[in-house]
Amino acid sequence: MNRIVYLNGRYVPEREAVIPVFDRAVLFGDAVYDVVAVLEGRFINYDNHFLRLARSLDALSIPCPVDRDGLLDAARELVARNRLSEGAVYVQVSRGVEDRDFLYGKDLAPSLFMFTQEKAVLNHPGTSGIGLKSVPDIRWARRDIKSVNLLGQVLAKAAAREAGAQEALMIEADGHVTECGSSSFFIFKDNRIVTRPLSRSILPGVTRKALIALCRSHRIPLEERRFTLDEVHAADEAFLSSASSLVLPVVRVDDRPVGDGRPGPVYATMRENYIRYAMDSGVSTVP
Amino acid sequence: MNRIVYLNGRYVPEREAVIPVFDRAVLFGDAVYDVVAVLEGRFINYDNHFLRLARSLDALSIPCPVDRDGLLDAARELVARNRLSEGAVYVQVSRGVEDRDFLYGKDLAPSLFMFTQEKAVLNHPGTSGIGLKSVPDIRWARRDIKSVNLLGQVLAKAAAREAGAQEALMIEADGHVTECGSSSFFIFKDNRIVTRPLSRSILPGVTRKALIALCRSHRIPLEERRFTLDEVHAADEAFLSSASSLVLPVVRVDDRPVGDGRPGPVYATMRENYIRYAMDSGVSTVP
Repeated sequence: MNRIVYLNGRYVPEREAVIPVFDRAVLFGDAVYDVVAVLEGRFINYDNHFLRLARSLDALSIPCPVDRDGLLDAARELVARNRLSEGAVYVQVSRGVEDRDFLYGKDLAPSLFMFTQEKAVLNHPGTSGIGLKSVPDIRWARRDIKSVNLLGQVLAKAAAREAGAQEALMIEADGHVTECGSSSFFIFKDNRIVTRPLSRSILPGVTRKALIALCRSHRIPLEERRFTLDEVHAADEAFLSSASSLVLPVVRVDDRPVGDGRPGPVYATMRENYIRYAMDSGVSTVP
Repeated sequence: MNRIVYLNGRYVPEREAVIPVFDRAVLFGDAVYDVVAVLEGRFINYDNHFLRLARSLDALSIPCPVDRDGLLDAARELVARNRLSEGAVYVQVSRGVEDRDFLYGKDLAPSLFMFTQEKAVLNHPGTSGIGLKSVPDIRWARRDIKSVNLLGQVLAKAAAREAGAQEALMIEADGHVTECGSSSFFIFKDNRIVTRPLSRSILPGVTRKALIALCRSHRIPLEERRFTLDEVHAADEAFLSSASSLVLPVVRVDDRPVGDGRPGPVYATMRENYIRYAMDSGVSTVP
């Protein structure tokens, strides 16, 4: 790797992108992040990602160290310096640096870094169909905060890989599906799309939000309610969404095919609608 | 601060103790830690802390990068270089450094750092009596792993401070007490000490383990079972334990006194027994 990383106002070669071991991100996972896709010269859903970052910070009482335009300027500079054509910009803000104590100081200066990842977004390999492995959702009770306390997701995705699946489908102790390891989850059954409603139990997906708005504007029936793994197995289709994978078809869950085991027409419509929306509404990566 | 920090085999001034932003500790909290008290030239419970560190690593499939004697040598050198007289040695191991992906690479080299904190252990200010604030236990389901996914504890202790308390007492949704924000918890009622049994719901406290052994050898009745906040309010005494606070009396929970609101005799006996045991069994900080 030979990238330029943004670190607290400076652009540094990635080997120099280092932070103190006393940063609270290192000692407590006391940090939040967000990821914005870059596609054909655009940041996709930039404003909603910025708003979610600000919301995550607020939930942890970390002052937001940057405003919407300031972060956009830095992200643009970073994309230019790395000649990023397609992929994602990752941004992380931690509470700051101080000697280790669970109780944080009152006047800490938040620390911010950002890096790019070049990857195929439009031609994501998952477009041919994703297999999911169902796992217990063992995460904490504030999954609406996009923090770097991500061991639950790390273990879930490792278990999925172990089982030959590409993503994990997380199931509450009460039998209800929450979401995937790093994506929102949808099923289609009885002529409507179903996804779990927002609460502290799932991440407020930015792509999810756009898909719900697209359903409304395209008059595609969508219901936000809880559902079980049995309902997933009985669904006609299933798909997932995330910033850097957009919308991907789920064709298998725990070695059982979803529907006929191939990407379905509702998925295809949603992906097409979303890509058109993303292109139309994206914010240019050049000033 | 002007300490020397141990970082992957080197002893560096703390301002040079930095790690890559691509360390998985930073991006995922994919790291574990442990804390050993230093008291009168001894590491307290060194072997059990080392075993717990190894157990935490094993639970996350992170190879242990050091053996018992290797870590002891480094800890001794660190104590000497920092002239640490009383306090703690903190050790953290992360899965390693790589470009960000939930799925970790198979051959990552774990990263290890260690630092000292000088603090009053024997004369901990809490010996005059600790007030607790009860909070919902919102942590994940693998609390037996001593990982740096610590936001649940950070928020719990912040809520305790907000309420004028010194520690948080975490309560499950089912009404049962788990443990404190960073310590094990015990009540005394009907002539016996009660503490929650080990499971994935609590951390296997090293000091807790020693206290239970001391109860056995001193024939003090102790029961490991779940109990509720109501039972705490009805208890004659309560106390907590941790590596760097040893044993401390809990005199108030949510503005209600425990027993007569003063440190009790069972607490005093347990603390005295523990300090004697700690001194007798400690491992010298000089080779």
